[in-house]
Amino acid sequence: MRTSRLEAFSDGVIAIIITIMVLEMKVPHEPKLGALVKLVPVFLSYVLSFAYVAIYWNNHHHLMHATSRVNGAVLWANMHLLFWLSLVPFTTGWMGENHFEALPTALYGVNLLFAAVSYWVLVRVIVRNEGQDSHLAKAMGRDLKGMVSVLMYLVAVPASFLEPVVARLIYLVIALLWVVPDKRIERALRGASEGR
Amino acid sequence: MRTSRLEAFSDGVIAIIITIMVLEMKVPHEPKLGALVKLVPVFLSYVLSFAYVAIYWNNHHHLMHATSRVNGAVLWANMHLLFWLSLVPFTTGWMGENHFEALPTALYGVNLLFAAVSYWVLVRVIVRNEGQDSHLAKAMGRDLKGMVSVLMYLVAVPASFLEPVVARLIYLVIALLWVVPDKRIERALRGASEGR
Amino acid sequence: MRTSRLEAFSDGVIAIIITIMVLEMKVPHEPKLGALVKLVPVFLSYVLSFAYVAIYWNNHHHLMHATSRVNGAVLWANMHLLFWLSLVPFTTGWMGENHFEALPTALYGVNLLFAAVSYWVLVRVIVRNEGQDSHLAKAMGRDLKGMVSVLMYLVAVPASFLEPVVARLIYLVIALLWVVPDKRIERALRGASEGR
Amino acid sequence: MRTSRLEAFSDGVIAIIITIMVLEMKVPHEPKLGALVKLVPVFLSYVLSFAYVAIYWNNHHHLMHATSRVNGAVLWANMHLLFWLSLVPFTTGWMGENHFEALPTALYGVNLLFAAVSYWVLVRVIVRNEGQDSHLAKAMGRDLKGMVSVLMYLVAVPASFLEPVVARLIYLVIALLWVVPDKRIERALRGASEGR
Repeated sequence: MRTSRLEAFSDGVIAIIITIMVLEMKVPHEPKLGALVKLVPVFLSYVLSFAYVAIYWNNHHHLMHATSRVNGAVLWANMHLLFWLSLVPFTTGWMGENHFEALPTALYGVNLLFAAVSYWVLVRVIVRNEGQDSHLAKAMGRDLKGMVSVLMYLVAVPASFLEPVVARLIYLVIALLWVVPDKRIERALRGASEGR
Repeated sequence: MRTSRLEAFSDGVIAIIITIMVLEMKVPHEPKLGALVKLVPVFLSYVLSFAYVAIYWNNHHHLMHATSRVNGAVLWANMHLLFWLSLVPFTTGWMGENHFEALPTALYGVNLLFAAVSYWVLVRVIVRNEGQDSHLAKAMGRDLKGMVSVLMYLVAVPASFLEPVVARLIYLVIALLWVVPDKRIERALRGASEGR
Repeated sequence: MRTSRLEAFSDGVIAIIITIMVLEMKVPHEPKLGALVKLVPVFLSYVLSFAYVAIYWNNHHHLMHATSRVNGAVLWANMHLLFWLSLVPFTTGWMGENHFEALPTALYGVNLLFAAVSYWVLVRVIVRNEGQDSHLAKAMGRDLKGMVSVLMYLVAVPASFLEPVVARLIYLVIALLWVVPDKRIERALRGASEGR
Repeated sequence: MRTSRLEAFSDGVIAIIITIMVLEMKVPHEPKLGALVKLVPVFLSYVLSFAYVAIYWNNHHHLMHATSRVNGAVLWANMHLLFWLSLVPFTTGWMGENHFEALPTALYGVNLLFAAVSYWVLVRVIVRNEGQDSHLAKAMGRDLKGMVSVLMYLVAVPASFLEPVVARLIYLVIALLWVVPDKRIERALRGASEGR
């Protein structure tokens, strides 16, 4: 089976997730600056989550580009990733509305941690399906960036209870780390094209 | 007519259904654990419905893959399926918010029953369009799994009023039964490829 | 320019319209039959509008299938149709929540009237672009069904104020009239295939 | 990398943005004309923003049509545009609900200004990727219309505080200016086809 419909469905889900998050930013009833100022934490949490979901879409795009076929296991691993991403509007809204307090900040990290793990699982399932000699398998290698991210989330979650600002900084650093699209896959694709 | 635009539209509707369900999980106004704990039944009903809608997407994906052409009857049978699926966020929200009480649990089962019947109708309409000698027709055969599911819903709906927990368990068992994608269609497709 | 991306965008918008209408059916806070009974008018208006939007999608699908190229005028005529369809969730919700009273029932008809007119405009713009000798131009002919629908809406809107039930019946009859996909276009397409 | 999945994702996001804006038009609880009249400013702001988002989709459609390949920078420049567009439902709702008062009208202009700048950035990034000799590069030229729009937003934002009606008129004029799709790109494409 080809990847096209899997991509179309994932695009749809991710596009909806990234867009409905803005609905958590409730339109204030008064035309005052004070009403806007109150929304600043909600806005900042929206920006952060927009970046995260955009990163997932970009990496998903690169990953699918390097995937030649899907099977049932890939479909379910992909659904599993979409499930954790679908919770991002909820955890974002809770963190923003409560001004980045300890518990919501920790829950946000747990959400991102599960999303990262489910992305890692998706990559493994695809690599197994493509074969260990595929360009993708070689490109992903030990997946250092993925592992570092997971470790950083594991630090950020407990840190939320001690010093929420540390957790927020970690979330920001991980996002910046990933804004650069996955060079490894791009390199592998180029290798594949040249090999043909 | 080809299936591509039917798939694109169905993907869109299913992607929206699976994502707006999360909006029923209202963001609590306080950053307390108690606020999260209150949401546990809503979360569990969300997980269950996410799995069901994902199952429908997976099976729809397999079914369309084995479909070579659509006509007006197929378009309407597909719309009929999407109609029942579109009610899932409502019945899920009602069941979750009322902690799986009898009536909402029964209505949820009625919703799933109609979705199952409309999927069965869609398969029949496509098989009639493809011809009784098509690989799809042979693959679907007597559709044992579909019939068993319908029977189980017919048990679960009245059971909701006697012992809601039984109904919940039945919904869970049916979901697990279907998480495995439809091997019959996969087999038929393989047969079709080999026959060429 | 080809029709593919126009179709993709229209599919997205129509899929969202048909799905967010269900959000007007607010989840009741109590697990009582009475709470469901109160929602019956909202549910009925949802079913009616689901049918109408599905009809528009089906006809749009057939129309685009018979369209070989788009230009700026086609893009804008299509946007104009999507605009009126995008108001359907609002007019549906208003009619349902107010139990099909006179004014909301009339506004619903006005909405459907504008949608019908904008669909008619879209067809004309496409026919002009395709050429008067195209199969589509011949197939659409005088567009009797479209004109009858517009006339019926023009009767239904004032009728809403005298006897809302008459307006409701007219809306139902028009929907039934259109559930059958446009045979004329199907015929023309067949002619086109045979002519090749 | 080809543009197809970038288009699919952008179509999804833009389709959702244009459709969820209608959710800001809350269904009134009474079937009175007065309830509708109160919604007139919200409706007008919806019409304006529908036109703006439709313009962006049309121009995006033309731009992508003239784009042969995307890289990481294009993906991110596109995400940046989608981010500013995703805020349009919020700023539209705030302006409509507060009857086009000074501050919300200014914020709406700021939103449109950032969207215009991010579109301009996207065009530059694509032109750099396509090469200065590409048809697109020649077609865009100095991008007079884009620059005029930015200047007009820069006038409209402060004007909102002096005389909101001036700002509203400017927004209307810019929309009308853009309803005509970008002739330059169409011309370049024609040139490209003839050159082949």
